[in-house]
Amino acid sequence: MRVQKAPIAVKVNGYTCKDTTQVTPQDFYFQGLATAGAASNTSTGAIVIGATVEKLPGLNTLGLSMSRIDYAPNGLNPPHVHPRASEIIYVLEGQLYYVGFVTTAGKLVAKHINKGEVFVLPKGLLHFQKNVAKSAPASVIAAFDSQLPGTQSLVCSLFGALPEDILVKSFRFKPKQVKKIKSKYQPKK
Amino acid sequence: MRVQKAPIAVKVNGYTCKDTTQVTPQDFYFQGLATAGAASNTSTGAIVIGATVEKLPGLNTLGLSMSRIDYAPNGLNPPHVHPRASEIIYVLEGQLYYVGFVTTAGKLVAKHINKGEVFVLPKGLLHFQKNVAKSAPASVIAAFDSQLPGTQSLVCSLFGALPEDILVKSFRFKPKQVKKIKSKYQPKK
Amino acid sequence: MRVQKAPIAVKVNGYTCKDTTQVTPQDFYFQGLATAGAASNTSTGAIVIGATVEKLPGLNTLGLSMSRIDYAPNGLNPPHVHPRASEIIYVLEGQLYYVGFVTTAGKLVAKHINKGEVFVLPKGLLHFQKNVAKSAPASVIAAFDSQLPGTQSLVCSLFGALPEDILVKSFRFKPKQVKKIKSKYQPKK
Amino acid sequence: MRVQKAPIAVKVNGYTCKDTTQVTPQDFYFQGLATAGAASNTSTGAIVIGATVEKLPGLNTLGLSMSRIDYAPNGLNPPHVHPRASEIIYVLEGQLYYVGFVTTAGKLVAKHINKGEVFVLPKGLLHFQKNVAKSAPASVIAAFDSQLPGTQSLVCSLFGALPEDILVKSFRFKPKQVKKIKSKYQPKK
Amino acid sequence: MRVQKAPIAVKVNGYTCKDTTQVTPQDFYFQGLATAGAASNTSTGAIVIGATVEKLPGLNTLGLSMSRIDYAPNGLNPPHVHPRASEIIYVLEGQLYYVGFVTTAGKLVAKHINKGEVFVLPKGLLHFQKNVAKSAPASVIAAFDSQLPGTQSLVCSLFGALPEDILVKSFRFKPKQVKKIKSKYQPKK
Amino acid sequence: MRVQKAPIAVKVNGYTCKDTTQVTPQDFYFQGLATAGAASNTSTGAIVIGATVEKLPGLNTLGLSMSRIDYAPNGLNPPHVHPRASEIIYVLEGQLYYVGFVTTAGKLVAKHINKGEVFVLPKGLLHFQKNVAKSAPASVIAAFDSQLPGTQSLVCSLFGALPEDILVKSFRFKPKQVKKIKSKYQPKK
Repeated sequence: MRVQKAPIAVKVNGYTCKDTTQVTPQDFYFQGLATAGAASNTSTGAIVIGATVEKLPGLNTLGLSMSRIDYAPNGLNPPHVHPRASEIIYVLEGQLYYVGFVTTAGKLVAKHINKGEVFVLPKGLLHFQKNVAKSAPASVIAAFDSQLPGTQSLVCSLFGALPEDILVKSFRFKPKQVKKIKSKYQPKK
Repeated sequence: MRVQKAPIAVKVNGYTCKDTTQVTPQDFYFQGLATAGAASNTSTGAIVIGATVEKLPGLNTLGLSMSRIDYAPNGLNPPHVHPRASEIIYVLEGQLYYVGFVTTAGKLVAKHINKGEVFVLPKGLLHFQKNVAKSAPASVIAAFDSQLPGTQSLVCSLFGALPEDILVKSFRFKPKQVKKIKSKYQPKK
Repeated sequence: MRVQKAPIAVKVNGYTCKDTTQVTPQDFYFQGLATAGAASNTSTGAIVIGATVEKLPGLNTLGLSMSRIDYAPNGLNPPHVHPRASEIIYVLEGQLYYVGFVTTAGKLVAKHINKGEVFVLPKGLLHFQKNVAKSAPASVIAAFDSQLPGTQSLVCSLFGALPEDILVKSFRFKPKQVKKIKSKYQPKK
Repeated sequence: MRVQKAPIAVKVNGYTCKDTTQVTPQDFYFQGLATAGAASNTSTGAIVIGATVEKLPGLNTLGLSMSRIDYAPNGLNPPHVHPRASEIIYVLEGQLYYVGFVTTAGKLVAKHINKGEVFVLPKGLLHFQKNVAKSAPASVIAAFDSQLPGTQSLVCSLFGALPEDILVKSFRFKPKQVKKIKSKYQPKK
Repeated sequence: MRVQKAPIAVKVNGYTCKDTTQVTPQDFYFQGLATAGAASNTSTGAIVIGATVEKLPGLNTLGLSMSRIDYAPNGLNPPHVHPRASEIIYVLEGQLYYVGFVTTAGKLVAKHINKGEVFVLPKGLLHFQKNVAKSAPASVIAAFDSQLPGTQSLVCSLFGALPEDILVKSFRFKPKQVKKIKSKYQPKK
Repeated sequence: MRVQKAPIAVKVNGYTCKDTTQVTPQDFYFQGLATAGAASNTSTGAIVIGATVEKLPGLNTLGLSMSRIDYAPNGLNPPHVHPRASEIIYVLEGQLYYVGFVTTAGKLVAKHINKGEVFVLPKGLLHFQKNVAKSAPASVIAAFDSQLPGTQSLVCSLFGALPEDILVKSFRFKPKQVKKIKSKYQPKK
C-alpha cells in the first residue's frame, strides 16, 4: 500500500493500490474461511476456499495468502500443483493420511498428521491430502508465499485437457481406455 | 532441497541442504503447534510458538513459515514488528479485539475478529492482538512470507534497550519516570 | 562470481564460488548439448540433456540454464512440470505438434510449431511436446529462468509414487486397473 | 525505464514509466537535499527530507532512494522503523552519538560516529540517531534499498495511534499516565 | 497471466495481462527467429532479432526471453552490455571465436566454440562474439533471464553519445582523433 | 544476521553470518570514507573508495552499499558500468559537469550538478562524472542497491582486455592505431 496522490485508481500488479490514508480494516479482513465448505458435494470429497488477493485486497504486493480445505469422511484433495508458491498446512480438525508430495526424484514424502500439526509442501511439486477418518470430517488451514498461488488440478489437466494421443503414449493406456476416461471430463474451451 | 552429491553437509542460507534422495517426511513436519502455549505464565498473557526454518528444516529456501499464538483471558500480544515478513492470522479459537496495525501515516487499522476469520498485517509495520474475552482463552495461527521472519518486541526494545536520554527525549518523559520504567526491564548484553 | 580471498572453497547457493581472478573459460562452457541424445532408446521417444549449474558452474547465482531435447520419430516428451522455472523452447530441427501447456483454468494452450519457431511455457504449469514426423527426428533448445529448474515427470510421479488408494480415488479407476498400471513403474525409495 | 510505444502513460509499480527516448536529465535529478532542513523547529530537533520515487521519478523500478537528515544541537531522530528497506548513513557534518539499532534479540548495537563515517541499519529494525554537540548542528545522508522505504515513527505510532488499554497493558503504565501521555499526540484519522 | 475479471485491459509491468480464459497459443508463440537476419548489411556483419515481451506478450512476468544472432563471414557482434540480464548462447551454425566477456577484474574470459556448444555471459558484463569463418555464416540462439534485457552497444554509446572532452580524457586520444572518430557516429537526440 | 547456534562460522552468500548475540557495532561501521582519496595520483584524476560487504560485514544479505569518489581539479571518473546495481550520487563538495549516463537507445542523459544535489544512474548503464573546476577538488557519496555492485571500467576492459582484431573491427580503427592504444594498457592475466 503505497502513498498515492492520484485521484484515479492506481494499479500495482494489476490490483488497485489505495492511498495509505484511505485504507480501511475491511481491506485486510476476510470472513470466508470461518465456515466449512460443502466437501461432501464434490467428486472426491474435498473443497478449497481461497483467501487470496482477489478477495483480500490488502494482500497486494505482500507475497502471502491463505486457504481453508475441508474434507468429507474419506475425502481426498486430489494431486495438484501450485505453480507460484510453496505451502504449509496446519490441521484444524481431524487426521490426514496421507499428507504428501512427490520429489523431482520421484520419491513420495508423506506422513500421517494429526490436529495441530503442520507439514510443508515445496513450490511446484505434486501433492495431495486425504482424510483418514471414515465418518468424521477434517479441515486444514494452508498458507502460501504468493498473493495468488494458482492451482493446477492434475486429474482435470491430464484427462480433461490433454489430447487422446498424448495420454495414450504418456501412460501406455489403450486408446479405448483413454476415450472412456476422458468421457468423464469436460474439456475447458 | 537441491540435488547434492557431496558427502558433507552443503549449506544454503546457512542451513543444511539435503540431497533430494535423503529427505524424509520428518524434515517437512512439526508437531510443536499442536498444544497451546502457557500464555498465562507471561507478563501480558500471550505466548508465541514458531515453526520456522530453525525447527522445520524443510522450509529452507521456501520463503514461508508459521507460528501459533495463545492468549490467556484478556491476554495481549504486545506491539511488535517482523522485520522480514508480512503476516496473515487466522483465529483458531476465541475473539480478538483488537487485531491491528499502524500505517506509516500513523493511522490505526484495527478490527474485532472472530473464530475462523483472517486479518493481514503488512511487512515491517507495528502490530498487536488482544483477546477480548475476560475468562476464555484465544489462539491463532499466523503465516509469514519468510522462513525466519524475526520479531522485534517494541516494549522491550524501547525500554529494555534504549538509553535513558534517548527515551527522555523521544517520549518527553521525565528522567525519573524513565529510570522507573527501565528498572522493570533487563537489558540484553 | 564474487571476489573471494579465502583459500578454501566458498559456497554460494551450495555451489563453489571462485575468485574472479581464478575463473577460466571452462567454467562458462559446456559441450554436452552438441550431440543428439539417444531418444529412440527411451520409453516415449524423447530425451533431455541439461546444461544446469550442476554441469556449468559459471551459472551459479545467474538464474538461467538451458537444455536440449531430442525426439525420435513420433517421440513424446511426456507431461511434466518445472517447479522453479518458466521455459522457452526453440525448434532446432523438425516439427512439433503439440507444443502445449495447460492453464490453471484447465485449458490446453497448444500449437503446431516448426523449425526456428519459439513457444513459451509458464512456470509451474503442466506441459509436453511431441514430434509430428513419423520418420524424422526432431530437436529443441529450451531455456529456463533458474540455474536448476528441476523436473517432475507426472507419469512417474503419479503412477510410480502415489499410493493405490489415492490413484483409485483421484482418477476413479478400479483398484485392479491401478494395480496393473502401477506394476509398470518402479517406485523410488 | 522500459521502451514503451503507447501514447498514454504506462504505469509500473503505480508510477509512470516513460519511453526511453523521452527521458530527460530532470527525471533523474533532485535538488531538495542541498539545503539543511529546519531541524530546530521540530519537537525533537531533527528533520528528514526524502529523495524517493515520489520526487525522483527516475528511481522507479530501481530499488534505491536517499534522504538527508538534519539535527539541531542535541537533536534526536527518534526511534523509528523502515518497513521496506535497510539503510546506510554517512555523516556530512558533526558527530552523532548514538547511531544505533536494536536487534531482534533486544540488544542495542550503537556507536559514536564522526564526520565521514558510515553505519548500517538493517531492514525493519528499530533505530535512531542523536547529535552529540550541544551547540553545533549535524547532518547525514542516508541511502535505502527501496524506491519508497516508508517510515514508521514509533513514538507517534505507539502513543498517537494505539488505544489506551493496549498501552496500559503493554507498558504497565497506569491509565492516568497513559491518558496524559496520549494527550500530547493527535491521533490520525 | 493472472485471472482478471476486469473488462478493460489490466497492465502488469506496463504490459497487458489477459484473463486466463482469454489467452491463446498466439500469445506464447513467435515466428521471427526462424529466418536468418541480413547480417551482411550491417556495419560489423552481425544482426540481432529479439523475442522479448514486446513481441511475445506471454513472457510478461516470466523473467525470460530469447534472441537470434546471425553473423556474416567474419562478422562481429561488437562489445555490448545487457543491463538487466545474464545470457547463455547456443551455436546453431558455424564456429565462433571469440565468444568472450571481460570480468570486473579486467580479465578476458573467451573461447572458441563450435556448433551445439554453449557459453555463459554473466549479467552486466562487456561481451562480444565473432564468426571465425571467412566465407561461411554463423548463427546462435541466446537466452536471457529478463523479459526485456536491454542492450547497450558500447561502440555507439562511447563514440556516438559521449562528449568529446570525456572521450579525450578517458582514452587519452588527441582531440583531433576524437573528432574524427565521432564524425562516423550520429548522436541520438 | 540470522540466529545461528553453530560454533563454526556459517556462511551466507559466501560471507560469515554471525549469531545475533555476537554482533558488535564494529560489524556495521566503516571509517574509510572519511578521508579524501588521492585523486591526483590517478591517470584521469578520480579515485573510488568502496564501503561494500568486503569491508562492512554487517551489509551481508542487506542489498546495499556505498562508496566515496574524489576528483582532482578537472578529474574524470571515466565511463564504467556496475553490473549488479543502480546508483545515486550525492555531491559532497564541488560541482560536476557532466554527471551522465547513456540509455540503451544511445542517448546521453547528463547534467551539471552542484553540492548537495543528487543524480540517479540506472543499473547496468554506461556512466561517468567529471569535476567542472579547474583548480578545486570535488567529491561525492554514491549509494548502490547491492552489497557488492562490481565495477567494469570500460576503458581498461576495451583496450586492456579485448583482442586487437575485435577492437579494429568494432571501432573501425586502423590496426596500427589499436596497437598503439593497447600499448598503454597492461592486460590482466
